[in-house]
Amino acid sequence: MSDTYDVLIIGAGPGGYVTAIRAAQLGFRTAVVDREHLGGICLNWGCIPTKALLRSAEIFHYMQHAKDYGLSAEKIGFDATAIVKRSRSVSGRLNGGVGMLLKKNKVDVIWGEARIDAAAKGNAPGRVTVAESQRAEAPKGAKGPGIYQAKHIIVATGARPRVIPGIEPDKRQIWTYYEAMVPEAMPKSLLVMGSGAIGIEFASFYRTMGAEVTVVELLPQILPVEDAEIAGLARKRFEKQGIRILTDAKVTKVQKGKDAVTATVEADGKSQTITAETLISAVGVVGNTENLGLEALGVKTERGIVATDGLGRTNVPGIYAIGDVAGPPMLAHKAEHEGVICVETIKGLPTHPMDKGKIPGCTYCQPQIASVGLTEAKAREQGFDIRIGRFPFMGNGKAIALGEPDGLIKTIFDKKTGQLLGAHMVGAEVTELIQGYVVAMQLETTEEDLMHTVFPHPTLSEMMHESVLDAYGRVIHV
Amino acid sequence: MSDTYDVLIIGAGPGGYVTAIRAAQLGFRTAVVDREHLGGICLNWGCIPTKALLRSAEIFHYMQHAKDYGLSAEKIGFDATAIVKRSRSVSGRLNGGVGMLLKKNKVDVIWGEARIDAAAKGNAPGRVTVAESQRAEAPKGAKGPGIYQAKHIIVATGARPRVIPGIEPDKRQIWTYYEAMVPEAMPKSLLVMGSGAIGIEFASFYRTMGAEVTVVELLPQILPVEDAEIAGLARKRFEKQGIRILTDAKVTKVQKGKDAVTATVEADGKSQTITAETLISAVGVVGNTENLGLEALGVKTERGIVATDGLGRTNVPGIYAIGDVAGPPMLAHKAEHEGVICVETIKGLPTHPMDKGKIPGCTYCQPQIASVGLTEAKAREQGFDIRIGRFPFMGNGKAIALGEPDGLIKTIFDKKTGQLLGAHMVGAEVTELIQGYVVAMQLETTEEDLMHTVFPHPTLSEMMHESVLDAYGRVIHV
Repeated sequence: MSDTYDVLIIGAGPGGYVTAIRAAQLGFRTAVVDREHLGGICLNWGCIPTKALLRSAEIFHYMQHAKDYGLSAEKIGFDATAIVKRSRSVSGRLNGGVGMLLKKNKVDVIWGEARIDAAAKGNAPGRVTVAESQRAEAPKGAKGPGIYQAKHIIVATGARPRVIPGIEPDKRQIWTYYEAMVPEAMPKSLLVMGSGAIGIEFASFYRTMGAEVTVVELLPQILPVEDAEIAGLARKRFEKQGIRILTDAKVTKVQKGKDAVTATVEADGKSQTITAETLISAVGVVGNTENLGLEALGVKTERGIVATDGLGRTNVPGIYAIGDVAGPPMLAHKAEHEGVICVETIKGLPTHPMDKGKIPGCTYCQPQIASVGLTEAKAREQGFDIRIGRFPFMGNGKAIALGEPDGLIKTIFDKKTGQLLGAHMVGAEVTELIQGYVVAMQLETTEEDLMHTVFPHPTLSEMMHESVLDAYGRVIHV
Repeated sequence: MSDTYDVLIIGAGPGGYVTAIRAAQLGFRTAVVDREHLGGICLNWGCIPTKALLRSAEIFHYMQHAKDYGLSAEKIGFDATAIVKRSRSVSGRLNGGVGMLLKKNKVDVIWGEARIDAAAKGNAPGRVTVAESQRAEAPKGAKGPGIYQAKHIIVATGARPRVIPGIEPDKRQIWTYYEAMVPEAMPKSLLVMGSGAIGIEFASFYRTMGAEVTVVELLPQILPVEDAEIAGLARKRFEKQGIRILTDAKVTKVQKGKDAVTATVEADGKSQTITAETLISAVGVVGNTENLGLEALGVKTERGIVATDGLGRTNVPGIYAIGDVAGPPMLAHKAEHEGVICVETIKGLPTHPMDKGKIPGCTYCQPQIASVGLTEAKAREQGFDIRIGRFPFMGNGKAIALGEPDGLIKTIFDKKTGQLLGAHMVGAEVTELIQGYVVAMQLETTEEDLMHTVFPHPTLSEMMHESVLDAYGRVIHV
């Protein structure tokens, strides 16, 4: 009896645990199952620990440029172990925090590998068998393996690194984000396969710490989901920092030597070899749909993700999916909102599918990149007649005062209606700036409202105003 | 003939020069008069050069805490001259930029002291006499003294430091922001009178650079225009940094000695003396309304500011006022928008007075403070039944990863309508965050829209979402 829940969530990542807390707030008796870590990849091996590493790199960069600010220091150095330790302790602290939040909200934590045996039918709840975890010890207070029942079962199992045959991660010379997060020493040279957010953040981190870095990207541009102009500017900055970038390029073979890996890379119809101490494989992720019993239940999956109706419901009543396993964009903030919508739908509250066009994306490399909505290319593809606004960091007083004169804010408007269709940024602090445009898009703002909004002076955010003004021929500081 | 303009603006500060550019965009033949510096106090002696100083202080602070990030350095130091030189060069660069922008927009620059001799009447334009500047050389290409005519004359003369009798700045021991911006060496001890944005920014800068700092404030709270709870948290942080703060305290006498000033301070009915190398007087500013001929023309002023109708029009047709001289809030971004509204009104475009309740304010000390709209006290005073949301930096993953766990985001909603009435922040980067709430208020957002907005993870801006959720009992990470 005590093992029957209203809502049982499989996976305690950012989607799963937030969903659990919201479910508990709505009065549901709630449990969340995990086999490895509260907070999921995001908090333990993704978003959060990378931000800690990148913060060390940021400050290391400032120290190396102390003279530019009238400051001085000698023997500037770093301790790779201490940097990693700090990053792990940030994750550890937040991981403990998730445990406390779940407890405070009276969400049960069940530890182990979950498999759905049955979905709810009529008055009978669904059933989940939880087996011993092969991966990690249970946190204090967690329930153990057993059979649990729940009216509503939400799959929030996330995703894992995609593996390319022949380039299998070996934890030693070929890394995924797991190993890249906890280097024993900084590699002297590095080859990064894939230039999405994960690949580029590691490239940026290791380059700042002094490694020779080469990035190989299959597609014609780095950061393939970003606006081409913004990605192009970012590329120039990376190259200026000494990162070597190959696009339209494919790693066809990897040979492991004693102290290095040698990759054969095909680009421009030519073949070359690149040797580096370490290779990071960051070629995307695949949803964790396996071993959950989904096939047996008849839950529909499409190209490796669980198909849902936009409110988290799968084709099988009583079974839901949210977050990475329910499809792109595979971002923590998308997972959280999707989970909230899912449990509010279960509660019978009026809900709407989330508008995936209004989900921002951020890359925390140096320079930072942030965007929301349509890129210029996508807007044209969709047949919009557009107006484009641009404002360079060079024209902004705060940017100059900060010593951050490189960057661009680009806005895209529908010429006909004045609606903001997309916003794209590269430069200092843009990951914290983008939210203003997200609020604007949420409210279906037109250029008029943004022009009348008073952005504070002197801030980088003034550029968000100027970019809009520029789209309408009214820019001031260019 | 060539000396007759459609629009002539007196004062090339942030209000004046932006207004001039917008006037030129609207097709007006435009001139701007200044006697001292393009970009005004803001760009030359205010917002911008302080941000440059504070940037050096910020990086100095990081360097001193290098170990926290796994980094190391020896002999960390600074060169006061180099820090000041950098700050001056930032101002110099932007000052030159304003000159170029004016030229590009075909705005004439007239150099000297302006006095309005007549307002436009019927077909006769108004008349302004410009006398030789006693303050600074004319920039290249500027027109000189003479009589100029203009249909529309806009007073944008700004403000200057308020002087308290007996505590007159002497450029040596008693400083205003002018001298505080260009110290020859860092003072070992400092007394700051006044805890508004200017006083607190200098207190923060000099404290970080190692000075013993005491702040004396007449009112019961520091940062008197800010929400009391936020100001209280900021005060705690300042005190933890070693800044001594006296509120409800009045400097009644200042005696200058050979190497120090001694101030008599009355607080709690008791009198004490505080001795410091330097005193910074930051007790507010007064509008520059004098010697412009306003009295003779019958232009109405009220308590030291020029009275306008909210669209920049004074009681005398053909004479306008914008920015600090037209009243509070005395902020550059308010001046700019006011100026744009003024010339658009002159052009005959449909305009509305700006809503002064939607103008954000920022203080760039460490920790930063930013706000928009009503404080909790003001909201209650105005009779609103309110809901308050709070979210601490401690609960935010990015804040922890940055090593910035102190701070708060507070939101105030009208319980009846759900309208966002005010937002108040203290902590890292909040001066760049506040714009999202400003956009929201501009669009008269309710809590529902903000709850549905997807803030990117992991960012500090997620706290803006959580603060809203908290106001409605739905917070996740607390």
